[in-house]
Amino acid sequence: MADPADRTEARGFAEAAEGPVYGFDPVVVEAVIQSLVAGDPARARQHVADLHPADVADLLEWLSADERRGLVEAMRQDFDPEVLSELDDTVREEIIAQLGVQSVAAAVAELDSDDAVDVIEELEEPEQREILDAMPAGDRTLIEESLAYPDDSAGRLMQHELVTVPTFWTVGETIDYMRQSADLDQEVLPEVFYDIFVVDPMHRPAGTLSLSRLLRTRRPVPVSDLMETEMNLIPAVMDQEEVAFLFRQRDLVSAPVVDDGGRLVGAITIDDVVDVIHEEHEEDIMRLGGVREDDLYSAAVDTTRRRFAWLLVNLVTAITASLVIGLFEATIEQMVALAVLMPIVASMGGNAGTQTMTVAVRALATKELTPTNALRVVGKELLVGGFNGVLFAGLTGLVAWAWFASPALGIVIALAMIINLVVAGLAGTTIPLMVERAGVDPAIASGVVLTAITDVVGFFVFLGLGAWLLL
Amino acid sequence: MADPADRTEARGFAEAAEGPVYGFDPVVVEAVIQSLVAGDPARARQHVADLHPADVADLLEWLSADERRGLVEAMRQDFDPEVLSELDDTVREEIIAQLGVQSVAAAVAELDSDDAVDVIEELEEPEQREILDAMPAGDRTLIEESLAYPDDSAGRLMQHELVTVPTFWTVGETIDYMRQSADLDQEVLPEVFYDIFVVDPMHRPAGTLSLSRLLRTRRPVPVSDLMETEMNLIPAVMDQEEVAFLFRQRDLVSAPVVDDGGRLVGAITIDDVVDVIHEEHEEDIMRLGGVREDDLYSAAVDTTRRRFAWLLVNLVTAITASLVIGLFEATIEQMVALAVLMPIVASMGGNAGTQTMTVAVRALATKELTPTNALRVVGKELLVGGFNGVLFAGLTGLVAWAWFASPALGIVIALAMIINLVVAGLAGTTIPLMVERAGVDPAIASGVVLTAITDVVGFFVFLGLGAWLLL
Repeated sequence: MADPADRTEARGFAEAAEGPVYGFDPVVVEAVIQSLVAGDPARARQHVADLHPADVADLLEWLSADERRGLVEAMRQDFDPEVLSELDDTVREEIIAQLGVQSVAAAVAELDSDDAVDVIEELEEPEQREILDAMPAGDRTLIEESLAYPDDSAGRLMQHELVTVPTFWTVGETIDYMRQSADLDQEVLPEVFYDIFVVDPMHRPAGTLSLSRLLRTRRPVPVSDLMETEMNLIPAVMDQEEVAFLFRQRDLVSAPVVDDGGRLVGAITIDDVVDVIHEEHEEDIMRLGGVREDDLYSAAVDTTRRRFAWLLVNLVTAITASLVIGLFEATIEQMVALAVLMPIVASMGGNAGTQTMTVAVRALATKELTPTNALRVVGKELLVGGFNGVLFAGLTGLVAWAWFASPALGIVIALAMIINLVVAGLAGTTIPLMVERAGVDPAIASGVVLTAITDVVGFFVFLGLGAWLLL
Repeated sequence: MADPADRTEARGFAEAAEGPVYGFDPVVVEAVIQSLVAGDPARARQHVADLHPADVADLLEWLSADERRGLVEAMRQDFDPEVLSELDDTVREEIIAQLGVQSVAAAVAELDSDDAVDVIEELEEPEQREILDAMPAGDRTLIEESLAYPDDSAGRLMQHELVTVPTFWTVGETIDYMRQSADLDQEVLPEVFYDIFVVDPMHRPAGTLSLSRLLRTRRPVPVSDLMETEMNLIPAVMDQEEVAFLFRQRDLVSAPVVDDGGRLVGAITIDDVVDVIHEEHEEDIMRLGGVREDDLYSAAVDTTRRRFAWLLVNLVTAITASLVIGLFEATIEQMVALAVLMPIVASMGGNAGTQTMTVAVRALATKELTPTNALRVVGKELLVGGFNGVLFAGLTGLVAWAWFASPALGIVIALAMIINLVVAGLAGTTIPLMVERAGVDPAIASGVVLTAITDVVGFFVFLGLGAWLLL
């Protein structure tokens, strides 16, 4: 077998042209596990030495808890702080506990302030305190300043390291300042940046200047002539979801963050926003699926506990639906065909409602559905429900008639289908709107309320019509 | 009422500190609609004149078809090409048809090549041809080159405008080149850029150089000393989902795109990738909800047609479940309580399975679930299904016992619940894995197969155990 570490390095043009060459190499995973099992952690460490921190983080997440402990122990001497910032929360907590306060504090101090905050904000209060106390005072202050802002706010996302210049400087002075800073001490400038912030004497942003603009301009030009004064100022308390919306809407790469007094306190860059967009989407999908948190890496017991609550709510709605069926016990006793067919009406209502709800929940999240156009959207969904209701009424009516040789039963299921699909269209749009107005994320609660309604209506209308028209 | 156009301009620090100030202003929407209704399109146009193109696009999407036509007519004289690139596909096609070939060709020619491709790639072949033919030859060639790459490939996403310098240049020469290009003709350089690409004589990338690095360095230093040679080269044929994964994983802001021969043909920037991430997530959520496309802006008839196919598949599975119930007609006739309770078992299985499936589908999309760790994940989900199965078996068993005063019925539903929740855990993980292996997006097909299984197993096990143990 070729050495997998060599394999990952050999990325020439030929390979690049062949197709995807990124993502994780199973051969490396295999080699790491084998080295660990063989009791050779030094060799395992060697296999991961040349990987990108994000890939190391993925690898750590993939390993079993035991294998992970072994690899972290092997990597302890030169644990890359960047790996910490790329890890999933559950796994990160585990590794932080294993590494210990001193090592983590040293690692966190090496990160940019935004990544450092990201690593420690999820920890328990006392653990957070311990790590902060073990850090150099300068780094600690910046992190504490960020932690003072609410969870999921722009203040938590921003980095404090940024390049600011006064309004009266020229292009030449700005370039000279950056060159000198680089000569004296790397720490003054951020590692990578895209915009320079021009500030007034009160340290309030007067304009932003992209590096590509700066580089195109001759030295004597004052920055105040070049800078973009129509800025997208982000209040430090703004919610990160709002920040992500703004970056996407305006195609931003970085934006200045200001405090209550309008003073520049930091900058948010696109890489952090990409993570936010990813997190928020993850949250939406999980919530729509009835999962509270990303629990791929949690232990089975924790996952069971987290999912239990949601299933309990569903049990209550399922029992409610059964109570409705219970009202028609006598009817079913006389005509068992009704019991056989009743799940069809309920299920079709649930599916049609879920389609509508999915569109509505997404449109609310992307601000495409608002009170302004809500009425039009609801009206359209009622129409769609009606159209599909008629189509499926015909289909299921024929099936029921053929199956039980009863045209009347066909008519009953057809009527029930139309009613339930129209109700599904109505409920699929109005429930998310009402849930959002109540201040709750529509992705969380809409699904369960929706299926409760389509089940109850489906069973009630079908069995009720059956009792009325058939017996 | 204050003039809404004035309102949107008045964004001082006080407002910025108060919270979200971005996103759409309903007052502007109202004012635009009123102006259109009042037959004053010039005034409507004035209201949108100062808006960001992305906001104008949102506004156009929100208006009814008639209002939209009126506003586009009013804006025809100076229609901002950027607005076209920000529009949703459905609405864009409508507006392109209204503006006509000549206007659209002129507008597209003004866009960066990546945005231009984005605007016309969704059009029908003949319409595309017409617009291309009406464009200046230079712009047309670039766009045709991009269109030659497959749909959703890196070649479609990249922009051709980029800054390249030879390996033997110094920092000073590079800066002088950019200043001269800016003096001579703006078109040579992209509007905004973040990296400079250093190329060898064959025009193959030798390294990348971030502007922030360039600006920090003194003039005599050769770019070859500064450049990053570990590049993330993107083959032009790479799928955009793969590109998005790479950008997120490596925190990239721009990356070089190479052709088969390894020559640099363009660059992809983060703003386009953010759109891809957004699109791909949208697609995932929609597919999980049984919706094929974002159909908020489609006419009711089109939406009905698109959703019909999915509902038809669901009808087939619902009928299959009914066939299973039909096997037990005689049993139900003897004991109607079974018909009353049977939806509970099926519904709980469906919900538990959906939870598991959601986690699995997401993990597959983010490459966190792979053949390497599949067995462990499946094992864990079986455990979770077992744990929750036992918990809910206890609960529903007690409910059934109390309701129908039959301990035996309680035992039957409890056993059925355990079995169905374990099956749900198994199906929720293995189905997405199998669907993915079959080369289909697991978000599309997993849900319907899953509920088919949990319904069939739920009804069969519950009614079967009932027939066996109770009668």
